[in-house]
This record gives sequence, C-alpha cells and structure tokens, in this order.
Amino acid sequence: MLRDAILDPQGNTIKKSLNSLGFKNVKSVRQGKLIEIDLNTSSSNKEKKNIEKMCEDVLTNSLTEKYKIKFLK
Amino acid sequence: MLRDAILDPQGNTIKKSLNSLGFKNVKSVRQGKLIEIDLNTSSSNKEKKNIEKMCEDVLTNSLTEKYKIKFLK
Repeated sequence: MLRDAILDPQGNTIKKSLNSLGFKNVKSVRQGKLIEIDLNTSSSNKEKKNIEKMCEDVLTNSLTEKYKIKFLK
Repeated sequence: MLRDAILDPQGNTIKKSLNSLGFKNVKSVRQGKLIEIDLNTSSSNKEKKNIEKMCEDVLTNSLTEKYKIKFLK
C-alpha cells in the first residue's frame, strides 16, 4: 500500500468511477497489493524476521510504500 | 485475488525471484489487489450490501477473481 503522503492516482480513478456509477458515499480509495506467501515451515515466530526481510529487500519500496504482515495459520 | 484454479504468472514470478534471492522456503506466492475504501457512513451493517454490489459490479471479475470484505472500524 502506498504511504499516506504519496498520491495514489489509481485509487483516485477507482473512486471517481465508483462515484459516477452511483456509489456516491465513497469518500476515498487507496489501492495496494496483496501478496499471499505459502512457506515450508511450521513456526510463524521463527519466520517473522525472514518475512520482514523479504518485504524490506524485495517486495516493497520503503520510500513510497508501507506494508503489513499477517499470518493466516 | 485470482481464484485458486486460475494460473497466477505474476505470483509465480515473485516466487522465483524470492527463491533465487535466497528465500528458499517460499513454496508458492499468489498476488492480488487490496482496495481500501473510505465511506461517508457510520454503520457497517447498512453498507455491507452496497459494498458487495461494488465488488460484484465494478471491482472484481467474478469469473476469475474472488474477494473478501473486511471492515476496519
């Protein structure tokens, strides 16, 4: 997801489309990426550092983007 | 997010990149979109139908994509 201070033209376009299609109560839209990763491991604690490293080094641009990590099971 | 039966070349490319960069325990990756919508309303129950309609009609292609709705507050 783009940081709050960064303009999101794609989200803005979605907002305008929704508004013009009758969804008038949409105030703002921000668009980001969702990446679901399946790991060969059982312990989510052990992997947290590893996943953070993936996010910082590969998956996001920390200058413009923020990220959240969520373990599904 | 693409349905499970649909090939996800973008996710596959991310998986290969992560593997080749040393994250060997990544088994599979699927990539989707995250859309954060700010609404002019206080009751999330009242809006659920409305948001479902947005997802079905505008935001997703139900043939190839699945979606989840989550209320943040």
